[in-house]
Amino acid sequence: MSTDASVLQQRYQANNEILAANPELDLPLMRALMEEIHRCAAEPAGVTYAEVDAGGRPAMWCTPVASSDDAPVVLFLHGGGFVLQSPHSHRKLAGHLAVGVGAPVLVLDYRQAPEHPAPAQLEDAVAAYAWLIDQGVPADRIAVAGDSAGANLAVTTVLRLRDQGAPLPAGVIGFSPWFDLECRGASMETNADKDLLITKEICAMMAGLYLGEGGSPSDPALNPLYADFSGFPPVYLCAGGDEALLDDGRRLSDLAREAGADVTFDVVPGQQHVHVFMAGRAPEADRSIATAAAWLSARVGQPATSEISAGGAG
Amino acid sequence: MSTDASVLQQRYQANNEILAANPELDLPLMRALMEEIHRCAAEPAGVTYAEVDAGGRPAMWCTPVASSDDAPVVLFLHGGGFVLQSPHSHRKLAGHLAVGVGAPVLVLDYRQAPEHPAPAQLEDAVAAYAWLIDQGVPADRIAVAGDSAGANLAVTTVLRLRDQGAPLPAGVIGFSPWFDLECRGASMETNADKDLLITKEICAMMAGLYLGEGGSPSDPALNPLYADFSGFPPVYLCAGGDEALLDDGRRLSDLAREAGADVTFDVVPGQQHVHVFMAGRAPEADRSIATAAAWLSARVGQPATSEISAGGAG
Repeated sequence: MSTDASVLQQRYQANNEILAANPELDLPLMRALMEEIHRCAAEPAGVTYAEVDAGGRPAMWCTPVASSDDAPVVLFLHGGGFVLQSPHSHRKLAGHLAVGVGAPVLVLDYRQAPEHPAPAQLEDAVAAYAWLIDQGVPADRIAVAGDSAGANLAVTTVLRLRDQGAPLPAGVIGFSPWFDLECRGASMETNADKDLLITKEICAMMAGLYLGEGGSPSDPALNPLYADFSGFPPVYLCAGGDEALLDDGRRLSDLAREAGADVTFDVVPGQQHVHVFMAGRAPEADRSIATAAAWLSARVGQPATSEISAGGAG
Repeated sequence: MSTDASVLQQRYQANNEILAANPELDLPLMRALMEEIHRCAAEPAGVTYAEVDAGGRPAMWCTPVASSDDAPVVLFLHGGGFVLQSPHSHRKLAGHLAVGVGAPVLVLDYRQAPEHPAPAQLEDAVAAYAWLIDQGVPADRIAVAGDSAGANLAVTTVLRLRDQGAPLPAGVIGFSPWFDLECRGASMETNADKDLLITKEICAMMAGLYLGEGGSPSDPALNPLYADFSGFPPVYLCAGGDEALLDDGRRLSDLAREAGADVTFDVVPGQQHVHVFMAGRAPEADRSIATAAAWLSARVGQPATSEISAGGAG
């Protein structure tokens, strides 16, 4: 692990100390605290930002200055357990991905739980995808990406598109994915001592808020480990080796491959949950983003830029 | 007041409710909460960001894509009572100012109280100014700007530069300035019912943290209402008519004019503290930024861009 990669560990540990000192923290303060995760990333060079209404919900374009008119587009669904974080907490991460792909990334501000339980998030993501198509972006030039709970949304959004008979995106990218709303992965136990953020209790709480009253954690529309992956587009997943959620990536990879999907699953040893939050600051994060970008570029006929590792802190 | 200008009122009121429900809020959570002020602003169009070491402290360049090589430079000192907020909370505000001036804005991440009492903030600002000069920017192409406590720092930084015999900047800009560390302005009382954020108690607490043990609130190096303004460069100030700190701008304007300085002081009726936080979202904020940008451009021989009012939400 690089020295810089300890940035995320330190932030998770500091957050844990704040949460331990404030056990009854209310949701607005919890949300404010978790927005601060953006500080782990450096500002990506040469990216502009613009707010837009993407099919009924706010979204943020992260556009590299060097992006061409025929570049692909990434629809990015941020993590935060369906409850926390925003396009702002993920702006720099999305900006680094945009530089890596050489293409705009649209970060969707989908409705959040518990105010809006599932499937509001999926509906917003499907509407944003339809909005991109309406803007003239061909489906096979779109990737749907996300981190943590956002990777869950990326996969379930594309499952829903497939079920609707909609044109499918060129690929799906998930960083540190959280798929299992039942929180049953073996790594929940085997990595419990290493993961500084995720616990079974936190996942169960977030899943409960997401599912709302009457929702089932084994609903295949929300928990893709129960889904049928036939006809699913190519998938790229990566996770940190120290994650409690490590097995979520493994299990979905196995399931999707059995159904014939083209799945790549990279494990980065020693890394924490969403280590790509350190984009521009830690080489492990930059390598993972560059790998995802190269994977996507190969699927949309766009050469990956080679600027990732230089695109970080000035 | 425009409908959109209620965005800031709503945020201040929501913060007050959170603070009332959490009276013992510790500093990391208070800081996280006050970072969220950035949500009042829309992303400025066509601005890139880059992190840099500006004379020993981190800083963020906010650079319009359309900026020319011979554009002036604004050194921006963010507000937050010397204790709170950061280049991130002020990134979009600074970006709108950058678009207005058509020039890069450097937002300094100066050391904060109470960990670092005065004059650490001033030392960092003076070092950043010297760093800009070292980068080849002529002093008469630099403006020093800030909001609230950052406007205090902008003025005291330039007082210090003058006392050191350093080349002076082309102008000083202060939005909703807080100068009086003794909190004695008449508007502290007369606007007490209208101002949703600032109270005498809050100012006294912040001033105490800034001054540290042994610091005096009438020290002319820190409270510019006690300073000598002879030889001071042109000043542009603006404040909201509903501010408890309204008289700070008035009093400094009178003082500096008496010493022969060229001072403009605009009062925007009905507006709250740092109404420019609504940049890109409320016309009152955009007009104030455009006015400050035009004022500065006239002093550095740069035509102001006319894109301010269009440079907001997409």
